[in-house]
Amino acid sequence: LDTSTLAMTIAYIGTDYHGFARQDGIPTIQGALEEALATVFRREVLTVAAGRTDRGVHAHGQVVSFELSGGEIQGRSMQQLRSSLNALTPDTIQIRSIEQKPTGFSARFSAVEREYRYRLVAAEIPALFLASYAWSIPAQGFDVQALRRAAYLLEGEHDFRSFCVASSAEDKNTVRTIRSIRVFGMDHLGESSLVVQIIGNAFLHSMVRIIVGSLVEVGFHRREAEWLTEALAAKDRKAAGPTAPAHGLTLWRVRY
Amino acid sequence: LDTSTLAMTIAYIGTDYHGFARQDGIPTIQGALEEALATVFRREVLTVAAGRTDRGVHAHGQVVSFELSGGEIQGRSMQQLRSSLNALTPDTIQIRSIEQKPTGFSARFSAVEREYRYRLVAAEIPALFLASYAWSIPAQGFDVQALRRAAYLLEGEHDFRSFCVASSAEDKNTVRTIRSIRVFGMDHLGESSLVVQIIGNAFLHSMVRIIVGSLVEVGFHRREAEWLTEALAAKDRKAAGPTAPAHGLTLWRVRY
Repeated sequence: LDTSTLAMTIAYIGTDYHGFARQDGIPTIQGALEEALATVFRREVLTVAAGRTDRGVHAHGQVVSFELSGGEIQGRSMQQLRSSLNALTPDTIQIRSIEQKPTGFSARFSAVEREYRYRLVAAEIPALFLASYAWSIPAQGFDVQALRRAAYLLEGEHDFRSFCVASSAEDKNTVRTIRSIRVFGMDHLGESSLVVQIIGNAFLHSMVRIIVGSLVEVGFHRREAEWLTEALAAKDRKAAGPTAPAHGLTLWRVRY
Repeated sequence: LDTSTLAMTIAYIGTDYHGFARQDGIPTIQGALEEALATVFRREVLTVAAGRTDRGVHAHGQVVSFELSGGEIQGRSMQQLRSSLNALTPDTIQIRSIEQKPTGFSARFSAVEREYRYRLVAAEIPALFLASYAWSIPAQGFDVQALRRAAYLLEGEHDFRSFCVASSAEDKNTVRTIRSIRVFGMDHLGESSLVVQIIGNAFLHSMVRIIVGSLVEVGFHRREAEWLTEALAAKDRKAAGPTAPAHGLTLWRVRY
C-alpha cells in the first residue's frame, strides 16, 4: 500500500463561501481545495476536514487531510506543494503549512481538541473594520460579567442535544466535553471585541453558535445563568437560545 | 452671524474610495458625506477634513468640520444628526460622534497633532484577514530591530521635502515636526502585524507612506540607517525610498 497521508493547515475568510463542504456548482472551501489538488495531481483527490464549517464561518487553523501515492509525493517538497496550491486557490483561502502524517491519520477522526473563537462587538455603533468578523450587539443593557460568569456552567461533559441543530441530533450520541470557555477582550484594527473562546473534544452542528446565542441572552439579562443548566437538561433545541450569526465564528485551532 | 461649527469624528474603510477629496462622479469619502448632509439639510454643505487621505487609505479617527445655521441646528440633537447621517452614508463610512465647536474652529487648521498608523505584515505567506489593512512583506531578510532603531532619526523638526510627492512641494514650506515614531507588534484577527505609529503636527502629501517605504529599505538592510539623515539633507524626492502602498495606512487620531 504505497500511500502517504498529508495534512494541511489552512485559513480562510468564509464570507463568500457556502461553507466548507463540497457542493456541485457552488463556491465552497472544499470544492476550491479539491479543484486545486486535481489540477496539481491530474486526478480527483478527496479531502477530510477537522471541522465542516458552515456558510460564512471563518478558519484560522482548519486542518484538512488527504492521501497521495508514493509516486505523487516523490521529488516534491511540502513547500513546493503548498506554493502550487496557494497559487491555484482564491486569495481568500490560504494553505499555511503541509506535512506528512503517519498512515491512518485523519484530520477529522484523529483530532483530540478543537478550539473555536466567537467575536462580539458590543457598541452603540456596529463594528466597521470587524463587520465581517464579529457579531455587533448593542452596548446598552449588555452585561459582560453576567455572560462571563454564566459561561462556566457549560464546561465539562454534557449532553448538548439542546445546543445543536435538531435534525442533526436524531439517533446520535450528542454527549460532548467542553474543556473550557473563556471570555476575553481584544482590540482588532482599533475596535474592541469580546472573544468567546471555546475548547472541546468535538462539536455538534451549530453548537458553538447556539452556545454563544444563549450566553448573549444571559448577557442581556433576558435569562438567568441557571437557565443554561435547565436548557442542557431539557435535551430539546427549543430550550436553548437563538443561533448566533455565522460571521462572528472562526475555527481557530485543532490539536492532535 | 447665526452659524454654528460642527465637527464629526469618522471612521472609514478606504478600499473602495478614490480618497477623501470630492471628485465629480467618482466615489470619495467627502462626496458621500456631503451628499448625506445635502439630503438632511436640503442645501450644499461644504466640509473640511483634518487629513485629506489618499485613495485606499483608511481612517479610524478622521475629523471633518462644517457650518450650519442656528435654524438648522435648532431642535435637533447631535445624536439624531449622527443617526441620520449614518443611515444615509455607505456601510464603509461611520460617523462616530458629532459635536458643536467654537466659531472659527476648522478640522484642518485647528488640529495640533495628527497620528497615523501603518501596518506591516512580515511573513512567509501574505496576510489573509489583514490583506486590505496591511502591507505584506517577506519575512526573509527583514530585520525589525534595524527598522526600529532607524525610525528615531526622523523624529523632530526637519525639512521633509525628500519625503513628499515632488510636485506638491514646489514653493511650499516643507518643514514639519514629527513628535514620535514608535514601532510595536500587534495581533489582529490572529495575524501578527508590525504597527509604525507616527505622530506629528502636520504631514505633507504621501509623507507617512514615503517614511514607511524608506524605513522598510533599512529593515531589509538595503540601506544603512544613516541614509535617512542623508535623504533629509538632500531635499529631493529621489533621495528617499519608495512610497509604501496606501492600504497599509490609517489616519488614526487628530488632537485639537
